[in-house]
Amino acid sequence: MKSHTRYLALQTPARRGFVNITPEVREAVQQSGVQEGLVLVNAMHITASVFINDDESGLHHDYEAWLEQLAPHAPTSHYRHNDTGEDNADAHLKRQVMGREVVVAITAGDLDFGPWEQIFYGEFDGRRKKRILIKVIGE
Amino acid sequence: MKSHTRYLALQTPARRGFVNITPEVREAVQQSGVQEGLVLVNAMHITASVFINDDESGLHHDYEAWLEQLAPHAPTSHYRHNDTGEDNADAHLKRQVMGREVVVAITAGDLDFGPWEQIFYGEFDGRRKKRILIKVIGE
Amino acid sequence: MKSHTRYLALQTPARRGFVNITPEVREAVQQSGVQEGLVLVNAMHITASVFINDDESGLHHDYEAWLEQLAPHAPTSHYRHNDTGEDNADAHLKRQVMGREVVVAITAGDLDFGPWEQIFYGEFDGRRKKRILIKVIGE
Repeated sequence: MKSHTRYLALQTPARRGFVNITPEVREAVQQSGVQEGLVLVNAMHITASVFINDDESGLHHDYEAWLEQLAPHAPTSHYRHNDTGEDNADAHLKRQVMGREVVVAITAGDLDFGPWEQIFYGEFDGRRKKRILIKVIGE
Repeated sequence: MKSHTRYLALQTPARRGFVNITPEVREAVQQSGVQEGLVLVNAMHITASVFINDDESGLHHDYEAWLEQLAPHAPTSHYRHNDTGEDNADAHLKRQVMGREVVVAITAGDLDFGPWEQIFYGEFDGRRKKRILIKVIGE
Repeated sequence: MKSHTRYLALQTPARRGFVNITPEVREAVQQSGVQEGLVLVNAMHITASVFINDDESGLHHDYEAWLEQLAPHAPTSHYRHNDTGEDNADAHLKRQVMGREVVVAITAGDLDFGPWEQIFYGEFDGRRKKRILIKVIGE
């Protein structure tokens, strides 16, 4: 069994944002030499997500508006977590809707994707350095 | 390490629906010959889900009503994604709540399930051909 | 390839609750002898979740209040699933928001975690015996 580990560092300029990380994941898969296996991609922080969906800016606007409706940032005093001095309780909730991680099949040395699948990092409490983990296993 | 890949094709007659795909996943696991490992099952389309829950029609009605409340289909003009000519922005949102994929343990050559676990495909923009990926790895 | 399977049994005293199971998962990883691989941790019941987030009581209060707002327990007659004699339809919905499972990378023999990641069992229909599955694979 082969394995390969890669950490991506990034920092979004705004509190919230979506970043397409498919090229970095594909590169890690290719570096691993794995032909058949799985790749796990996860946020290493608990106010961020990794998810798979469409690379379409209108949709990303819709996600942003919808998540803000489901779990509003303000009033920050609404959340007990924010009594600790944080203002990011909403980000912990939004991350649960969008998920922490994805697991993607590797077939014939590449991501085994449908026609529109792209991997995104979703940031809900940005403007600070965050990390993403890519773990490849297989043969 | 062994691996096995299977693609399921299906088309739901209505826009939304839930299909129990446990038999197909179990068959793929048995064909793989894997005794100990993992199986990944994911929608290859971004307006559909794979999830694990109960095979009970009342519950499926509740999921349908609840998802429609959380992310209504209409008015379609509410969503920027639909400015592209699509009318399925709500389906991209519903899929995030229900998830893209499941990973299930294989123990002694079978799905290692609790008493009520069943694997479902959840369609939120049907009436067209879609695919599901089953990837088995292990030994 | 090595594999290791462990079942955790637990029963929460109240209908809903969050339990930190990180020590048990870490112990299973160490017992497996796997240095590089993946560990799957999932609820074996369909009214419960396994998820990764912060071990902070204010946040857990916020999750509880938010999930009750998204998918209220009462009136129980609101849900068709409850026509079967159950009163736990809301628990099946809450579990989908929080997720069934997590997959965590194992690097150098330990959970490859960011600074705040902790694994939780989320119970939404407790006061009865439930099980969690831990499956380790790798080398």
